[in-house]
Amino acid sequence: MKIGVIGGGQLARMLALAGLPWAHEFTFLDPAADACAGPLGRLLIADYDDERALLELAAQTDVVTFDFENVPARSLEVLAGRVPVYPGARALAAAQDRLHEKALFGELGMATAEFVAVDDGTALSAAIAELGLPAVLKTRRLGYDGKGQWLLRTAAEVEVAARELGDTPALLECLVPFEREVSLIAARGRDGAVVFYPLSENTHCNGILHTTVCRADDPLQGAAEAQVGRLLETLDYVGVLAVEFFQHRGELLANEFAPRVHNSGHWTIEGAETSQFENHLRAILGLPLGSTRPRGHYAMVNLIGAVPEPARMLAIPGTHLHHYGKTARPGRKVGHITVACAAPGVLPPELLAL
Amino acid sequence: MKIGVIGGGQLARMLALAGLPWAHEFTFLDPAADACAGPLGRLLIADYDDERALLELAAQTDVVTFDFENVPARSLEVLAGRVPVYPGARALAAAQDRLHEKALFGELGMATAEFVAVDDGTALSAAIAELGLPAVLKTRRLGYDGKGQWLLRTAAEVEVAARELGDTPALLECLVPFEREVSLIAARGRDGAVVFYPLSENTHCNGILHTTVCRADDPLQGAAEAQVGRLLETLDYVGVLAVEFFQHRGELLANEFAPRVHNSGHWTIEGAETSQFENHLRAILGLPLGSTRPRGHYAMVNLIGAVPEPARMLAIPGTHLHHYGKTARPGRKVGHITVACAAPGVLPPELLAL
Repeated sequence: MKIGVIGGGQLARMLALAGLPWAHEFTFLDPAADACAGPLGRLLIADYDDERALLELAAQTDVVTFDFENVPARSLEVLAGRVPVYPGARALAAAQDRLHEKALFGELGMATAEFVAVDDGTALSAAIAELGLPAVLKTRRLGYDGKGQWLLRTAAEVEVAARELGDTPALLECLVPFEREVSLIAARGRDGAVVFYPLSENTHCNGILHTTVCRADDPLQGAAEAQVGRLLETLDYVGVLAVEFFQHRGELLANEFAPRVHNSGHWTIEGAETSQFENHLRAILGLPLGSTRPRGHYAMVNLIGAVPEPARMLAIPGTHLHHYGKTARPGRKVGHITVACAAPGVLPPELLAL
Repeated sequence: MKIGVIGGGQLARMLALAGLPWAHEFTFLDPAADACAGPLGRLLIADYDDERALLELAAQTDVVTFDFENVPARSLEVLAGRVPVYPGARALAAAQDRLHEKALFGELGMATAEFVAVDDGTALSAAIAELGLPAVLKTRRLGYDGKGQWLLRTAAEVEVAARELGDTPALLECLVPFEREVSLIAARGRDGAVVFYPLSENTHCNGILHTTVCRADDPLQGAAEAQVGRLLETLDYVGVLAVEFFQHRGELLANEFAPRVHNSGHWTIEGAETSQFENHLRAILGLPLGSTRPRGHYAMVNLIGAVPEPARMLAIPGTHLHHYGKTARPGRKVGHITVACAAPGVLPPELLAL
C-alpha cells in the first residue's frame, strides 16, 4: 500500500519503520527539506496546507495519516473525498483546541483539573481571581512540549504572562499537585475494535517528556481504559490515540489527548508484542489490531539536544537506540533509548547518568 | 555511519531495517535493478565483482558487509585496504567450499556426517562404493536452498546425478537419519566478545527452510556453543554466523555454516532482546553486542512463492508480517511471519494452514 503522512518528523519516521517490513511505501508532506522521515520514502517539500502538494499526496497514496495534531483544517478539506484520512477531522478539531478538548472530557465524564477560559491577556486577572494561584495558563491552540504555557505563582508572573499572551485565546487551569503523570495509548480499528497498552508512567524535565516506564497491572488501568474507550467511541476514532492523565489523590484527571502515536508509547517498539506504530498502521489500513502484551519491564528515555556516544549507551544491557537522524540542537528530541529493565521501573543507573 | 552491503536481497533489507533506527545509511551492490533492499538506501547496480562499483562502494562507506556467502574472492581483493570488510576473507573462503568447510569442522573437533570428496561425475561410483546408499551429493561451491544437491537412493539416481554433475567438484555425504535439524546463531564483536542465541529448530520443505522454532534451554545448547565458539575464534570472526547441525542419536553433527545473518534467525527480530541483524551491525561497527535473551516462545514461518492476504495472517494473535517487497515466484522466499506462541513450539494451527 502507499501511505501518505502529513508531517515528516520522528513519528512519521517510526511509522515508516513499522511499515517498511510490510513493503509499504511512504510519502511525507513536510515544509522542511531535511525532515527526518524523508530518507525512508518520498518527501513532498511544501507547507502543510499547500493545495498542489496535498492533491499530489492524495493522488499518490491509498490512505493518509499525520504525525502531529496541528494539521490545518484546510488540508483535511483538500484531501476529503480524494483519499481516506485517519484519524478523522473531528478528532483533530477536538485535539487542536484545549477548551473544546476539556469540554469533551467533561461530556464524557472524564474528570479534569478545574479550568476557566481566558479570552485574552486582559481577562487573565479575572480568571486568577476565580481559580487562585498557583495556576497554569495555556494557549487554546498550537501548544506542545511546554510551549504556549506559563506557570503562574506570583503577581509578577501573571503580569508577564498577560502581556505575552496578548489577544491569544487561552485557558487557565489549577496547578494540580499530582502524584504522577500517566498516559494510556489505545488503538481503534476501522471496524471499531479497540486495544489498550499498559499505562505509561511519564516524567517530564523542562516541560519535555524525559522518561516513560511501562506499568503493567497498574491499579488505574481499568479506569483509564473505560474513559479512553468512551473517547474513542465518541470520536469514531481510527488509529492510535494517547490520553495524558494526572493522578491526583489516587484518581485520574484527564489532561490532554493526542490523535496520533505518542512519545510515551515509544517503549512499545521493543516492549510490546505489537508497537503503537504497527497498530496505527493496522488500524488505518483496516487490518486486525495486534496484541499489546508487554514483553517485559520496559522503559524509555528521551535523548534531548544530542545523541550520546552509541558505544556508551549500547554497553548498558538491554538498551536499544533510536536515532532520529536530526541535527543536534538544545531542547530538541533527537532520539530515544528503550531499555529492558530487570524489574518494573528500575532503570539502569548508567542510563540515567548519560 | 555509512554501511555498504554486497548483495541487496532480503537479508540486506533486514540489516538496513535494523540500522535505520540508528540513522545509519546503506549502500547496496547488486546486479538486479529491483533488488529488494534497494528502496532502503542507495543501490549500485553492478555485478558483484565489478571493479568500478566496488571502488565506489569503498569510497562511499565506512564499513562493508555482505548478505550472501558466495561473494567472489576478487571483490574482497578490490575492497581490501580501502574499507574494513566484515566478516573477513578467511571466513568467506571456508564457507564457499564444502570440502574446506568440512575439513575445518574436523580440525575443530566438530563431528559431521561421513563424507568423501568427489572430483567429478566419473568419480561418483567409487565414492558410492565407499559410503553406500542412500547418500547426498553436493557441489563443493555455490549451493543454497537445496540447489546443487542430489539425493541418491538408486543406481538410476546415481547415473543421472553423475551426468548432471559433469566436471564440477563435489562431495558425497552419508544420508543421516537425523532426529531434527537445529542451528546456532552467534555474533562475535571486533573485540572478540561472543554472544549466542538459543538454538533454532528448523523444518525444511522441498529443500527450503519452512519453519523455525526458538528452543530456549535446549539440552544441546551448551555443546553447540562450545563448537561454534571454537569456529568463531579460529576464523577471528566478526559479525553474525550461523551453524546448521543435525541431531543424530542425540549428538550434534555439523552440517554447514553461513558467514552471515541467517534465515533460521529471523525470529530474533521480535523474539529476542536484540535481533541477529542489530547484533551483526553492532559487531561490524565495533559496538558492544546486545542481549540475546528470548522475549517469549517465538517461531517463524517462511512465506514461499507468494505472500498470503495480510488481513488473514494478522488476524492470528501474536503474528508479525515481514514482506520483502519481492515479486511473487514459485519457490521464492518472499517474506516470513514471526509468531509469539503460547508454549514452546506450539504454532497457531491457522498459521500452518495459510
